[in-house]
Amino acid sequence: MVRIGILTGGGDCPGLNAVIRAVVKAAARRGWETLGFEGGFEGMLDPLSYRSLTANDLDGLLFRGGTILGTSNRGRFAAKTGHSEVRRVPDEILSEAKQNFETLGLRCLIVVGGDGSLTIAQQMYEYGVPVVGVPKTIDNDLQATLQTFGFDTAVACAVDALDRLHTTAASHNRVFVLETMGRYAGWIALYAGIAGGADVILIPELPFNYESIVAKIHQREAEGKHFTLVITAEGALQQGGTYTTLAPASSDREAHLGGIAARVAAEIEQRTAKETRSVVLGHLQRGGMPTPVDRQLCTRFGVSAVELVAEGKYGHMVALHPPEIKPVPILDAIGKLRTVPPDGEMVRTARALGICFGNEITM
Amino acid sequence: MVRIGILTGGGDCPGLNAVIRAVVKAAARRGWETLGFEGGFEGMLDPLSYRSLTANDLDGLLFRGGTILGTSNRGRFAAKTGHSEVRRVPDEILSEAKQNFETLGLRCLIVVGGDGSLTIAQQMYEYGVPVVGVPKTIDNDLQATLQTFGFDTAVACAVDALDRLHTTAASHNRVFVLETMGRYAGWIALYAGIAGGADVILIPELPFNYESIVAKIHQREAEGKHFTLVITAEGALQQGGTYTTLAPASSDREAHLGGIAARVAAEIEQRTAKETRSVVLGHLQRGGMPTPVDRQLCTRFGVSAVELVAEGKYGHMVALHPPEIKPVPILDAIGKLRTVPPDGEMVRTARALGICFGNEITM
Amino acid sequence: MVRIGILTGGGDCPGLNAVIRAVVKAAARRGWETLGFEGGFEGMLDPLSYRSLTANDLDGLLFRGGTILGTSNRGRFAAKTGHSEVRRVPDEILSEAKQNFETLGLRCLIVVGGDGSLTIAQQMYEYGVPVVGVPKTIDNDLQATLQTFGFDTAVACAVDALDRLHTTAASHNRVFVLETMGRYAGWIALYAGIAGGADVILIPELPFNYESIVAKIHQREAEGKHFTLVITAEGALQQGGTYTTLAPASSDREAHLGGIAARVAAEIEQRTAKETRSVVLGHLQRGGMPTPVDRQLCTRFGVSAVELVAEGKYGHMVALHPPEIKPVPILDAIGKLRTVPPDGEMVRTARALGICFGNEITM
Amino acid sequence: MVRIGILTGGGDCPGLNAVIRAVVKAAARRGWETLGFEGGFEGMLDPLSYRSLTANDLDGLLFRGGTILGTSNRGRFAAKTGHSEVRRVPDEILSEAKQNFETLGLRCLIVVGGDGSLTIAQQMYEYGVPVVGVPKTIDNDLQATLQTFGFDTAVACAVDALDRLHTTAASHNRVFVLETMGRYAGWIALYAGIAGGADVILIPELPFNYESIVAKIHQREAEGKHFTLVITAEGALQQGGTYTTLAPASSDREAHLGGIAARVAAEIEQRTAKETRSVVLGHLQRGGMPTPVDRQLCTRFGVSAVELVAEGKYGHMVALHPPEIKPVPILDAIGKLRTVPPDGEMVRTARALGICFGNEITM
Repeated sequence: MVRIGILTGGGDCPGLNAVIRAVVKAAARRGWETLGFEGGFEGMLDPLSYRSLTANDLDGLLFRGGTILGTSNRGRFAAKTGHSEVRRVPDEILSEAKQNFETLGLRCLIVVGGDGSLTIAQQMYEYGVPVVGVPKTIDNDLQATLQTFGFDTAVACAVDALDRLHTTAASHNRVFVLETMGRYAGWIALYAGIAGGADVILIPELPFNYESIVAKIHQREAEGKHFTLVITAEGALQQGGTYTTLAPASSDREAHLGGIAARVAAEIEQRTAKETRSVVLGHLQRGGMPTPVDRQLCTRFGVSAVELVAEGKYGHMVALHPPEIKPVPILDAIGKLRTVPPDGEMVRTARALGICFGNEITM
Repeated sequence: MVRIGILTGGGDCPGLNAVIRAVVKAAARRGWETLGFEGGFEGMLDPLSYRSLTANDLDGLLFRGGTILGTSNRGRFAAKTGHSEVRRVPDEILSEAKQNFETLGLRCLIVVGGDGSLTIAQQMYEYGVPVVGVPKTIDNDLQATLQTFGFDTAVACAVDALDRLHTTAASHNRVFVLETMGRYAGWIALYAGIAGGADVILIPELPFNYESIVAKIHQREAEGKHFTLVITAEGALQQGGTYTTLAPASSDREAHLGGIAARVAAEIEQRTAKETRSVVLGHLQRGGMPTPVDRQLCTRFGVSAVELVAEGKYGHMVALHPPEIKPVPILDAIGKLRTVPPDGEMVRTARALGICFGNEITM
Repeated sequence: MVRIGILTGGGDCPGLNAVIRAVVKAAARRGWETLGFEGGFEGMLDPLSYRSLTANDLDGLLFRGGTILGTSNRGRFAAKTGHSEVRRVPDEILSEAKQNFETLGLRCLIVVGGDGSLTIAQQMYEYGVPVVGVPKTIDNDLQATLQTFGFDTAVACAVDALDRLHTTAASHNRVFVLETMGRYAGWIALYAGIAGGADVILIPELPFNYESIVAKIHQREAEGKHFTLVITAEGALQQGGTYTTLAPASSDREAHLGGIAARVAAEIEQRTAKETRSVVLGHLQRGGMPTPVDRQLCTRFGVSAVELVAEGKYGHMVALHPPEIKPVPILDAIGKLRTVPPDGEMVRTARALGICFGNEITM
Repeated sequence: MVRIGILTGGGDCPGLNAVIRAVVKAAARRGWETLGFEGGFEGMLDPLSYRSLTANDLDGLLFRGGTILGTSNRGRFAAKTGHSEVRRVPDEILSEAKQNFETLGLRCLIVVGGDGSLTIAQQMYEYGVPVVGVPKTIDNDLQATLQTFGFDTAVACAVDALDRLHTTAASHNRVFVLETMGRYAGWIALYAGIAGGADVILIPELPFNYESIVAKIHQREAEGKHFTLVITAEGALQQGGTYTTLAPASSDREAHLGGIAARVAAEIEQRTAKETRSVVLGHLQRGGMPTPVDRQLCTRFGVSAVELVAEGKYGHMVALHPPEIKPVPILDAIGKLRTVPPDGEMVRTARALGICFGNEITM
């Protein structure tokens, strides 16, 4: 009997379970068994941590957030962090994983993960382990695929928050600053800002200055709108007119959550004397039931990944090229950010509505 | 001052208001005034029914379902019905509308509507009225655009229904048949079926027979699953082995709602002796708050439509070609259905999961 | 080790699983084992169908709809149907169930069910089986408790539907008739109608005539409101001025779903010449994730039921007497409907807002 | 024509608009006009800020969060802050408000507000202004009414957050600390904690120590549950074993948001070496669409308030005494907190499930 392995790596993301479900179901229809490694790549090392996944394990997985296999950002696989230098997984780790892979009699390993996990997957592939990738990044910032799962759920979470803040802001004549995920790419803030009616959108791709934000707030006051909604990606930051992306030395992304929103809110309150409050969505974006969009994307990704295994198309990952799912070499996908084009249609749309990116004065 | 007109035609759809909002906002930023005709095309005829739309009219429009301008499937503009012969709008009607258009000093008319309304728009364009189109079809069955607004909201509504029926079906060991929209194309049933974990999907594009459905139900029983979820598009129907699409002589689409689900459920109950219940979503799919996906799509469509006006690109409509919004000639868009490819990736994905399309035996 | 049994009987209802979870958790904290009988009372008869419930079975139960134990309206326990004559469970059935109960070494049986299931529970109690009841009726029509679980979820489902229909009704100048559950009591329609802004509410407790509804629709037209939302309980029906409740001879409640809405809609359309559409919520109200209100009520009910067992207070069921949960004798609870008081505060509130109960003219 | 006034005071709360709608509708049915003062009590002072509310202003108000009248915590009415000494509104302010009230020919003023606003209302009443109160406190901590509107919506928001955090916590083997509102009373944290499956609940009424929380986390680890959900009211705080409520000198409640969650999370992480994250719901709880429960409660409150005006029952406020709405003297309601009874049924329910209140060791 053919056996395949699957693991989920990196940060949690809505839809991981739906990918697992699709893989196990599609594999079972071919008569294959699926082993799930637990705790990310770590589960492949001694002492092995895995379990056989059967139909009974799939109950409710389509709509349950998280991953039943667990995941981790840490461990013996020293993945690259952020977009700094790529670090190599030590050979003895690759060797141990490969040996376990072979001992278990696996045909292929399906790696569901972001840029970091896919980088490890590529190294395993080069080391001789047949791998197939499923891309995962809640920020939607992977160049090789137009959309990744979890993104739509995160956007929905942020839009729901904007809807909530809208009424309280209007009732109290306040400014609200909502912080979303988006370390290097501002897709969540941009999409949610447009869909949720934000007045100001701050993203890493577009440097901002406070004068511009203040001018927007004053303009709204002049139009009789005494409240303003600001949405900011966690990676948008400007100090003293100089734009800087967040480049945390630490691998712990969450430690920085909330810093931007509080700083932006304080600065706005000081400059406008308007009551300004901040809300940080943080992990609320990662959890919960995936949206229908994410559920179907996950399902298609999972099924396509099993097809790639069947075709022996190793070293590839599945990717969305609307309206199709297509394979792309993992090597072509890693390390290449898909950021918001500053002059793209989405930004132009936002500007055409009068949405401020915080740089209108200087541009 | 430049003045443009806008109207919404055909059946109601989540996101119409979001399109109106985007058009008015984007027009206002250019210093243009927007007139909204009420009750669809009918509002352009004597006695004129329109109003000037200003920022004050836009409050809350981004997330409110329906259309503040009203809409209609009926009236003096004798649009073609369904996909039968195209009927011409009488010249005296076109003439009256054109004269009113000119008397109001409008530069362009933005028509937000489906195949029927866009057909009228094209005839007006050929008659000398500058028009720009925004495509609307909840069924997502227009060939010229990969996605139309309202579709994602309808899918979300259907998935929510499947989630609800899932637990009650499992608790009572029942079969449930859920009927969604989709007269000629089964996109809603297909997407929702995949995202909501349906076991059987019936769509107009794939003829079905009851033997196949019954076999699927028995197979599930054998696997210890004593319940089954069937999702069917309103246009899926097969009698005596012969597949027929619904081709209502009447223009009143809704009169047929519910017929399919009840018939399919009765047939299944008779053949399997399992308790089988049906639910018809009907107008629940049309109403309510648009999803974030639809809100951003509507906003982009509305802004792009105003850009087409600015460029004088009349006779065109906006369309989604991911990741961009692009103009396409209305003439190229009307009368061309985008149906589910029977061998496409989505159907293959569903089959790979074991989802039954009701034709497994005969194929 | 103390062992208790639990079963869920009658129609499905959101929150059953949350009750099971609370019972198993509270029992386990006392060091007790819980056996769950499957398929309602039927699981207590030969061949026995039950399983031991442990912490591992509880994962996700708090928010999953349905019942993992299954339930049934049918079987060898010939429960009374509706509110007709109470039929006795045959002695040989009671005897068999009691013997199995004793063989399993159970201390008490917790019965989660509606009027029918509680009637059986009372007969078992009188036959010598220690029972404790947890009341369940989605219609909220049990006199002994101010609220039952599932009701809040059903109301939320109906309000969501009204919200959706509101915008489509307004866009098309239509009348919509929404049918909810409520066979003998109109609580769901009344609560949802008030919370969802219905214009007309039809409930079994208040006879209605079409003249009154038509007058309301005309009055709204005169005020410039060209649409009307009607919400009707499935049990509201009046013909020719004579009020009749639905008294189905059959035990199959669902067979009648949709009859009222379609008839009321047809009658309104004929009398007003306004486009009138109907939507039947049906089983959508029964399924899905319970609301927070229902989840906490279920949890409190489950914990209290275990307390009653600990106190040996058999023959009692838990009941909500705000803000407390209190025990009441099952005998005092069964067969006593809690219907909407025609002159109560809720109806007066609705009337004060101008909501029509369809009897304004004749009263 | 009879004229009444209405204003909303204090912090924003879901359902304020639904109260306004009910008051205006019920008043209009009596032939009365309703004037809405803007910006809280401040709108009654020179320069007057008010507007006549008609049916046209009510569109969508039932489900829109916030208050169209605006509200404020600040201004010339020097209300008492928190539960410190009651400060008197200066006589010249009361006099000015009364004079404006009389000049406008108002029969009564309906004040929708919390403890602070009702205290002002009582002083106005004693000064000779006929007032009727509608209680508002998102914390649900007013003794005179079993429930206030906004509370159910806030609980639902917190439960949704717990549902989201549940899956991400389980996937990453983390501890999460969720902070909700609840300055002096822990109702939101308690209800949401029970309905959302929290493992630890921290409320102002029950002092806690970290040893107890750590013990609970370790106990869960021993049971194979490697994650823990903590929900804490903003007012729960203990330092060095000594329990202290937050007693902010400042009137600005929101300034303290987030302090507790971060401190509790840091302490837990340090003591357990488990990754611990915090999320602060903050204003998300205040905004957004009210739940059906809140919508019906608001509607009943609004209608009842108009009835009190009709009966001349001034100096009273409406209150929920299930299943009825009843009037109570405002004087009996203000300054009396309804806190969670430490030995009440809700806390006992939570304990019976194994939920830890952070004081199990020391008690």
